[in-house]
Amino acid sequence: MKNDQERPKMNKMTAPKPKTKRGVERRAKILAAAEQVIGEKGFAAASIADITRAADTALGTFYIYFSGKDELFRELVEDMGQATRSQAAERISHTTNRLEAERAGLEAYLMVIRERPMQYRIVEEARFVDPDAYRTYYMEFGQAYAEQLEAAVEKGELAPGNAEVRAWALMGIAKTLGERFVLWEDGADIDRIVTEAHKFICNGMAP
Amino acid sequence: MKNDQERPKMNKMTAPKPKTKRGVERRAKILAAAEQVIGEKGFAAASIADITRAADTALGTFYIYFSGKDELFRELVEDMGQATRSQAAERISHTTNRLEAERAGLEAYLMVIRERPMQYRIVEEARFVDPDAYRTYYMEFGQAYAEQLEAAVEKGELAPGNAEVRAWALMGIAKTLGERFVLWEDGADIDRIVTEAHKFICNGMAP
Repeated sequence: MKNDQERPKMNKMTAPKPKTKRGVERRAKILAAAEQVIGEKGFAAASIADITRAADTALGTFYIYFSGKDELFRELVEDMGQATRSQAAERISHTTNRLEAERAGLEAYLMVIRERPMQYRIVEEARFVDPDAYRTYYMEFGQAYAEQLEAAVEKGELAPGNAEVRAWALMGIAKTLGERFVLWEDGADIDRIVTEAHKFICNGMAP
Repeated sequence: MKNDQERPKMNKMTAPKPKTKRGVERRAKILAAAEQVIGEKGFAAASIADITRAADTALGTFYIYFSGKDELFRELVEDMGQATRSQAAERISHTTNRLEAERAGLEAYLMVIRERPMQYRIVEEARFVDPDAYRTYYMEFGQAYAEQLEAAVEKGELAPGNAEVRAWALMGIAKTLGERFVLWEDGADIDRIVTEAHKFICNGMAP
């Protein structure tokens, strides 16, 4: 926790969640606009006025749904986490062992980056805007991942090995391949990249 | 190149390099102060006045050596690249094959993050401050890395496999392990982490 402590803490207040259908829709519209605007301009440069303009809403409406830009940012980060987990879980549900699951999970992750490049950037910018949210985001992910790898070793689906180091190594592979081949390039052949990476991963952990 | 194009371009001007010993020293002192100040406050919040104050220099002196904050930032990013490459090259020079070199390179990278946590943060912040510099930094690194892996496959030191995907996968492993275990934690046991990760890497690519 040492090297990111110096940055100012975020405002942790939250506005009450809307109760009507119309409220839920307006809030979602503001979130979608914020994703575009913050993804394009960066967090510091994106103003609430930019966001409400993009969402076609009055400035004051923003504060009905969010206590400020900080709350909205945290929600975009959490939303990306949920999208990644649910896409990965869906694909992994069709697999029968951990090595197949690794392939499905990597593919899901690269697809999420392709579908939500702006939101991926926002999560990465959280490292500087909201270091606590960033660390929580990846620490939770890493812990759940390590538990799954541990269970797979016990079932004999993977060779023995340190689950925590493996989990973070695998997250690193997914992130860098996603940035290099999906975020920085148009039309990457995700299937080919996943196939190549999966050979390496399989050999690395096969029982 | 698509998703980072929207941000404003950096000022690419450069000030002439100092010719006297005193000039070289004062420039280096400003760079060292900038590393601390930008690493702590972030690029946007760090002012040139903060930097010259930390360097114990007059504000005007800054502009003798740098055209502005952009030039200084680019130089910090490049300097981190050089430190990483030279540390890795030194350790790798004592190895006799590619798999040993992978271990040495990973260890060197984690040591550089431990020694220069602020500078590591600055490189990562470059993704938002100067996307071109960030991409160039990692693309050059990735290309050189892939060439080395390619050569090792030809020598029979590694099993055949796509060198580019492998290079980025290995860079991802090094980055995430560095962030998780070195940047976010005090007193990580680098040797243990490298040993665990290296098992995975060896199995992943051994001939």
